[in-house]
Amino acid sequence: MTVLDSSMLLRAQAMDSDDELAHARSRFRLPEGVLYFDGNSLGALPAAVADEVAAVVTDEWGIGLITSWFERGWYEAPLRIGDAIGRLVGAGSGQIAVGDSVSVQLFNLLVAAVRLRPDRSVLLVDADIFPTDIYIARSVGRLLDMTVVTVPMAEISNRLHDLGRSVAVVLVSPVDYRTGQLWDVDAITADCGRYESLAFWDVCHSAGAIPMQLDKAGVDFAVGCTYKYLSGGPGSPAFSYIATRHQLDVDLPLTGWHGHLDPFAMSPDFVAAQGISRARISTPQIISMRALECALKAFDGIAMEQIRKKNLMLGAYFIECVDSLGAVPNLACITPNTDKLRGSHVSLTHPRSEVLISMIGAQGVIADGRPPDVIRFGLNALYNSFADVYQAVTVLAGSIDRLESGRPNH
Amino acid sequence: MTVLDSSMLLRAQAMDSDDELAHARSRFRLPEGVLYFDGNSLGALPAAVADEVAAVVTDEWGIGLITSWFERGWYEAPLRIGDAIGRLVGAGSGQIAVGDSVSVQLFNLLVAAVRLRPDRSVLLVDADIFPTDIYIARSVGRLLDMTVVTVPMAEISNRLHDLGRSVAVVLVSPVDYRTGQLWDVDAITADCGRYESLAFWDVCHSAGAIPMQLDKAGVDFAVGCTYKYLSGGPGSPAFSYIATRHQLDVDLPLTGWHGHLDPFAMSPDFVAAQGISRARISTPQIISMRALECALKAFDGIAMEQIRKKNLMLGAYFIECVDSLGAVPNLACITPNTDKLRGSHVSLTHPRSEVLISMIGAQGVIADGRPPDVIRFGLNALYNSFADVYQAVTVLAGSIDRLESGRPNH
Repeated sequence: MTVLDSSMLLRAQAMDSDDELAHARSRFRLPEGVLYFDGNSLGALPAAVADEVAAVVTDEWGIGLITSWFERGWYEAPLRIGDAIGRLVGAGSGQIAVGDSVSVQLFNLLVAAVRLRPDRSVLLVDADIFPTDIYIARSVGRLLDMTVVTVPMAEISNRLHDLGRSVAVVLVSPVDYRTGQLWDVDAITADCGRYESLAFWDVCHSAGAIPMQLDKAGVDFAVGCTYKYLSGGPGSPAFSYIATRHQLDVDLPLTGWHGHLDPFAMSPDFVAAQGISRARISTPQIISMRALECALKAFDGIAMEQIRKKNLMLGAYFIECVDSLGAVPNLACITPNTDKLRGSHVSLTHPRSEVLISMIGAQGVIADGRPPDVIRFGLNALYNSFADVYQAVTVLAGSIDRLESGRPNH
Repeated sequence: MTVLDSSMLLRAQAMDSDDELAHARSRFRLPEGVLYFDGNSLGALPAAVADEVAAVVTDEWGIGLITSWFERGWYEAPLRIGDAIGRLVGAGSGQIAVGDSVSVQLFNLLVAAVRLRPDRSVLLVDADIFPTDIYIARSVGRLLDMTVVTVPMAEISNRLHDLGRSVAVVLVSPVDYRTGQLWDVDAITADCGRYESLAFWDVCHSAGAIPMQLDKAGVDFAVGCTYKYLSGGPGSPAFSYIATRHQLDVDLPLTGWHGHLDPFAMSPDFVAAQGISRARISTPQIISMRALECALKAFDGIAMEQIRKKNLMLGAYFIECVDSLGAVPNLACITPNTDKLRGSHVSLTHPRSEVLISMIGAQGVIADGRPPDVIRFGLNALYNSFADVYQAVTVLAGSIDRLESGRPNH
């Protein structure tokens, strides 16, 4: 039988008692008997959200009705929440608009980015980025007559050097959603700068988990989701970042009326707003938007560096627990055991990953899978503990034992 | 002093006591002391929504967490709710997807519509349609090298006859958002058919108020919002209709992963889903989506024909009340007083419309304005009464009196 050494549990308990973020767990509502490691897919419910959403529905919509668009700040929510997210991803005020979905924002900004480099013909894309990004890049490429070149992240910079000034935009993700590998945002962005190619980062898997420095790194464009480490709720609105230096020049295709310089004049001619308002499209889904705004308060008073420090410790400890099991048949860890190369989830592979995810799920350990054989464990410093990790690996080891012995339902 | 005759009040009371939809008002939460005539901009709160949203947040998100995507039906919500809307707009099952905003859906479907007519060069657009539609049409026209021709609705069919088979798509709205005028969907759609031009209707101002027959009329594409007469909540998700006959051919540009034939395979190649799933883009905003789903239950057991009948009576009575005031300085009604030419709001003009809207608002009568001088009163059969209308016109008349006498704050 595969078991974890009890000394590992003592270490977990010691790290939990030293954890300066332990208090943050009370900012979330986690169900009894569940160890939740899927915050990289859907973040847990922040405790304050239920009351806030109830107030939005009953008071702001029910009583305030149409007047709430201005009197309760609905209209400005996309930029106000954008600034709140900016504080977590290293973006100064007035560069982030919240709304719609990542696919939509990506399309909108990618068309605009390509239009900023009208004499170039290549869109260079991380081959292992989340598939929707590749689908959208190809769609944009087709509309604007661009060649989409996909290459693994490890080769992005070399390929960029080869293609040089033919590359309009480089679309990349700091964290591989399958393996959890972390890439060097500063270095790749700097490489883009060398050729005046635009650095476009999809930060879905890093926002709220890793201290991004979009401004300092010189990133040109970014999109991200808010329902993973930012815990904004199921399908909570996406965000888009346009560096200030590009805002007066971007020519966005989704010219909805909220991106108009004077939306309520209802003129038949579109005149783009100045500043990040230009990236607004149209009427935002307010209930989901306000849930997100409230959820972000779970970060109040906590620095991204503290979160990163604990996330790294959780990840290292997770991998150590798996390693300490010794040789487990068919199980491998594909996430780098080096802090600077690891994002905030740990991925294991097993040929029967789907069955294992169900088995551990039945025992209250929630993880998720990615084809063909990956089991992902998301680590969120705000609510995951080291003892949680110990328990999760224990349950996983027991499940593999049963699976290998042909008694998966035992 | 401008006053309404008391016989008008007796008539209102009689119509209210005969109203077979009077019971529906209890399906909404309307604030005390407010007469709400802005349901054409933001529908009132259906009574059941607050509890439903609380359950979505606390139980489905908080406890079900990631499992709710399938175990609580989140993933299928866009099509399930699409079918529910279909029942209100005359669309058979499997032709409507819900999500995103009208501007985004319009862009997506309009590109696809133009691509269905690759040898044509004109996008013919209602010049008085909501401005975002013109902005988006021009953006699409620019991307696909089409000429956008805007003409008033009264001239749409003539212009279509002139341009003939050069017209790829005709983008029109059944109801003029400023004047409330209703156009003949059947006739205009039939005209489009004559030239195999695609009939694309923006039904924002008719869905839930007028018994649309999208299938029967032979409409090709439609988009609509759900926060007006469908009372889905602030910024609630939009919907898109693609007639079954086009679904295998449409080539949509917003190729998000939820529109993939097998989204969870996460393949790097986009293969469009069969059927209306193709019009899904990506992760929907579930809290807003579920609020909408619950809101639609306010229509249970009520036929659109009943709603239309009462809306027409409310509109006719509203105009009669205004007429009965006699000649009021500077006040005019620009909404046709003919049932078959009137949508579900009544628009008055007054040079000081903004001030008047504030004055009546301060007295609890909520209407809205559109530049330069329009005051709109939306009529929703589910919660507006004839006595409400009497009272609203009384308050309006008194406010005009005070305004004309130079005592607006009296």
